[in-house]
Amino acid sequence: MECLQFLHMNKGEGETSYAKNSTLQMKIMLEGNPLLEEALNGILYNDNNINFPESMGIADLGCSSGPNTLTVVSKIIGIIYNSTRKTGRPLPELRVYLNDLPGNDFNDIFMSLPAFYKRLKEEKGKEMENCFVTGVPGSFYGRLFPRKSLHFIHSSSSLHWLSQVPPSLDGEDATLALNKGKIYISKTSPPSVLTAYSQQFQKDFSLFLKSRSAEMVPGGGMVLSFMGRSSGDPTTEDSCYQWELLAEALSALVSKGVVEEEKVDCFNAPYYAPSVEEVKDAVDGEGSFIINRLEAFEVEWDGDLELESNNSSCCDTLRLMSRGERVAKTIRAVVESMLTCHFGRNVMDELFTIYTGLVDDYFSRTRPKYINLLISLSRK
Amino acid sequence: MECLQFLHMNKGEGETSYAKNSTLQMKIMLEGNPLLEEALNGILYNDNNINFPESMGIADLGCSSGPNTLTVVSKIIGIIYNSTRKTGRPLPELRVYLNDLPGNDFNDIFMSLPAFYKRLKEEKGKEMENCFVTGVPGSFYGRLFPRKSLHFIHSSSSLHWLSQVPPSLDGEDATLALNKGKIYISKTSPPSVLTAYSQQFQKDFSLFLKSRSAEMVPGGGMVLSFMGRSSGDPTTEDSCYQWELLAEALSALVSKGVVEEEKVDCFNAPYYAPSVEEVKDAVDGEGSFIINRLEAFEVEWDGDLELESNNSSCCDTLRLMSRGERVAKTIRAVVESMLTCHFGRNVMDELFTIYTGLVDDYFSRTRPKYINLLISLSRK
Repeated sequence: MECLQFLHMNKGEGETSYAKNSTLQMKIMLEGNPLLEEALNGILYNDNNINFPESMGIADLGCSSGPNTLTVVSKIIGIIYNSTRKTGRPLPELRVYLNDLPGNDFNDIFMSLPAFYKRLKEEKGKEMENCFVTGVPGSFYGRLFPRKSLHFIHSSSSLHWLSQVPPSLDGEDATLALNKGKIYISKTSPPSVLTAYSQQFQKDFSLFLKSRSAEMVPGGGMVLSFMGRSSGDPTTEDSCYQWELLAEALSALVSKGVVEEEKVDCFNAPYYAPSVEEVKDAVDGEGSFIINRLEAFEVEWDGDLELESNNSSCCDTLRLMSRGERVAKTIRAVVESMLTCHFGRNVMDELFTIYTGLVDDYFSRTRPKYINLLISLSRK
Repeated sequence: MECLQFLHMNKGEGETSYAKNSTLQMKIMLEGNPLLEEALNGILYNDNNINFPESMGIADLGCSSGPNTLTVVSKIIGIIYNSTRKTGRPLPELRVYLNDLPGNDFNDIFMSLPAFYKRLKEEKGKEMENCFVTGVPGSFYGRLFPRKSLHFIHSSSSLHWLSQVPPSLDGEDATLALNKGKIYISKTSPPSVLTAYSQQFQKDFSLFLKSRSAEMVPGGGMVLSFMGRSSGDPTTEDSCYQWELLAEALSALVSKGVVEEEKVDCFNAPYYAPSVEEVKDAVDGEGSFIINRLEAFEVEWDGDLELESNNSSCCDTLRLMSRGERVAKTIRAVVESMLTCHFGRNVMDELFTIYTGLVDDYFSRTRPKYINLLISLSRK
């Protein structure tokens, strides 16, 4: 899928932008905060040679743009800063690398950096002049950073994206329409589809770990958070039903003659929600990292209104929306660039209107939840 | 001037974009190539401990966007690569930092990186996987990089921009209209204007050198290229007449009642074209760098058609233009963001139409040239 290289969250500040529709991802990120603190303190206070390094490399992989990006950076810097207050040691020089695919709206992040630096210095003092934020465009399924340059890596809501659609489901082979009428693993998918997705995940996640192991100093740490599933069965609703409903919405557009059936048949999402065991297998197989902690937690599809109530600018609007609208907006902000590339821009509004209805209908029957995996790893 | 923080070359690929109107800057960059080669070979072949480092930090300051940005990066990588072929030594890991102000179109650069990396690997082999390009937003009049992280710094067509308009000519004080009717140093400017500009340059350039000296390893090198002047007198036409004509065009808009006279009186360009002596004084005063070479060369205002003939897409259009049009387009692509911020977007077309006429008229009397300074420095 050629679209994948430039996959990006919806840009700008408009109604369908990721910046305005990423409170779910913020909630997921906040859930990871205690582990973030534990992991960073583990690096800073351990007994090997990297504790309180003079210069510390920190990367956020899949940083996206909008309010979430610099929030996590602030959190990480705050934890390190507090450590220095406690121990009386000087703050390390902080090299902060923000990574995402080249299509990400880095301009948006960069424009907010002067205010970010200013606030940092006001709140934490002149030492913060030694904090250097840079943008690193590229896929994290491959090398991004110089050898042994990183001490800590964070990634949230990104690693469920594969490097590519499994080859047997994409491109020319996809004319076989192995996964007919579906766009991700479904109850009706043949076993070969499940295997293709699982293999692609193993390949990608292993490459991710191998790349990071080259970039990280021994004793460095990594906190990863991404969609997963609660059982071994990849067709459980908590891991794929958002895609099932999207396929249903596309199918409605096919019935209306707005989208060609073949277009749906040859589209599959470059996404995978692994089980805890699959993640463990990949880490053990690659061999450079130790798992300190691996947890799964539930997140409601429509996020958390209480969280959003802190953001007064969007809260009133959000409260007036149906659950379906809220979910559809969250999903649209993430997948629209990819769907537009394949199905065309002009069907997007209609697609997400139908999708909204389907999600509302689903909510009338159940209270759907995603499963998010949260993992803390150390470089051996 | 609040506009300055987000000063940027005109974005995108449109008719007034920097990407389409930067052949003059390309020509200036190409003039620096022999010195670039000399400087890089000086670093790689010298006898101190940094020759052929394992990991090499390279920065381009004021990288802008469009075709010029990655051209200079390619050139630098090519020189280093050729050195490794000659000596049989392994290619260092290359950390390439692209810097410009936060308003620069980094998205544009990042979108062209996948193709850039691909070409690099095709042309120079698998070793090029150890080349990492990152974006560093911020002002080069201050720290941008970690301590001792750089081996080579390049900057072209950027250092004639000051960090700010000299304070006595900007903001509230500017209501005194010290430089009435002018927007840069002019024959009619009072001596206090000349002093204010010269002092701002000394302050800025010293801070630039001090910041770089902290970031560079001993023995590291720097090649800088920027507008300057041929004589001690800062009112000579070769250093300021492009601004004189722009002030004249603004004055015509004042006469027409389109722009308020006070708006022109309180606007001054954050620009300075120093003499060779002023540059030497700043370098000696700061004390961390040795000047290996300091040259001045002339560049015609309307660039070089032969160069552009390599770029077939724009050549025919350019050939049909008058010299005035070509010059006006080049200047507009650079200063429009700043002028728009002060005078408003709606007067830009008219301003540059008048400016075109004034430049054409000037060309009928003379063949104007800029003076560009080219300097190679070594970190002591």
